[in-house]
Amino acid sequence: MEPALSSRSGSRTTVRRAPEKQVEERAALDALLDAALVAHVAVLDGDWPLVLPTAFARDGDRLLLHGSTGSRLFRALATGAPTCATVTVLDGVVLARSQFESSMNYRSAMVLGRCSALAGPEKLAALQALSDRLLPGVDWQRQPSRKEAAATSILALPLAEWSLKVSDKPGPEDDPADVDLPVWAGIVPLHHVWGSPVPAPDLPPTVEPAAPAVLSSWPARG
Amino acid sequence: MEPALSSRSGSRTTVRRAPEKQVEERAALDALLDAALVAHVAVLDGDWPLVLPTAFARDGDRLLLHGSTGSRLFRALATGAPTCATVTVLDGVVLARSQFESSMNYRSAMVLGRCSALAGPEKLAALQALSDRLLPGVDWQRQPSRKEAAATSILALPLAEWSLKVSDKPGPEDDPADVDLPVWAGIVPLHHVWGSPVPAPDLPPTVEPAAPAVLSSWPARG
Repeated sequence: MEPALSSRSGSRTTVRRAPEKQVEERAALDALLDAALVAHVAVLDGDWPLVLPTAFARDGDRLLLHGSTGSRLFRALATGAPTCATVTVLDGVVLARSQFESSMNYRSAMVLGRCSALAGPEKLAALQALSDRLLPGVDWQRQPSRKEAAATSILALPLAEWSLKVSDKPGPEDDPADVDLPVWAGIVPLHHVWGSPVPAPDLPPTVEPAAPAVLSSWPARG
Repeated sequence: MEPALSSRSGSRTTVRRAPEKQVEERAALDALLDAALVAHVAVLDGDWPLVLPTAFARDGDRLLLHGSTGSRLFRALATGAPTCATVTVLDGVVLARSQFESSMNYRSAMVLGRCSALAGPEKLAALQALSDRLLPGVDWQRQPSRKEAAATSILALPLAEWSLKVSDKPGPEDDPADVDLPVWAGIVPLHHVWGSPVPAPDLPPTVEPAAPAVLSSWPARG
């Protein structure tokens, strides 16, 4: 294992390009990680780096990555190969008077480390933590079977070495010479919102067809 | 260069896990790539694989990745290092009666290959293509300056070796023994929608404060 580095001490996690966008507050990292559902995770296939999209949740000081024991690349991650999980939420487009100054508002975190595979009671607890985060408020009527648990792989990635980059411009930052150009400039926000729940057609008559209120009250998520 | 492989012939791009989700139609790939604004791109930092979020656009049979010549990792990609650009749009959550059968609806493409850095007139044309895709309908009043073009790095990644995985379940696929459990089941769609444009406070009086119609009519994008 590499030494655990905070975002402050890790040279690998010091943002060199556009350093003014680096945010070092752990609370801001947590807010992003708790708002997103998918991480993009690096894994080497031989010497070729690949990027896998993975459902994940933050559980305290670690990320839990949800995969299948049937996935070859997920099994490679489970051996503790070096990895990076990147979580990005796009918040809008910044339209300036020039192409060069036009940009995006976004939040993106990179978490570097090595995963460990969870097993036994620890794995079952992690499954519940994942469910509590991704499907909050659902009152499961049965626990995962032994076969289901065996088919599921949960990897833990410590939140030790990470960086967070945030661009949240309230407006375009045009070159003064461009401000009078006759072209619209401003921000177009992008929202990630839940639509109306669609109940399964075979809900038994004892179950309310409307989704539990907690589902429709989920926060907007990227 | 590796031989150019289509999704049909490439063993690296054959989906092994949940192969029923693999989609081989190029039109479906293009639809996803044209709906998304951000790709997650793999790059090796020494022997450690990292994942960079990058604004991108499809331009015919290639992806154009937008970065800065000041970015060390982007410069590494420009040398033709092996890479993978993954583009994911999350379309909703599938809530089943069991945690195990609950899942996400999503579309995700992986494009494998090596990037080449564009220069000169080819780079300027690529900048325009990126702008046409990411900021459609904007009538730029000036072209990028020589200095601006020099600070911008545009990489081209051929759409030769790729895979597309789509999960678009209309409802949960529960174990028959679970269907009568008294728990809500169904789909909760996730939408990615543009909000109301916020004009820059210093728009000159000659410019309509409302954003051009084309901006607010952009399709929902992930």
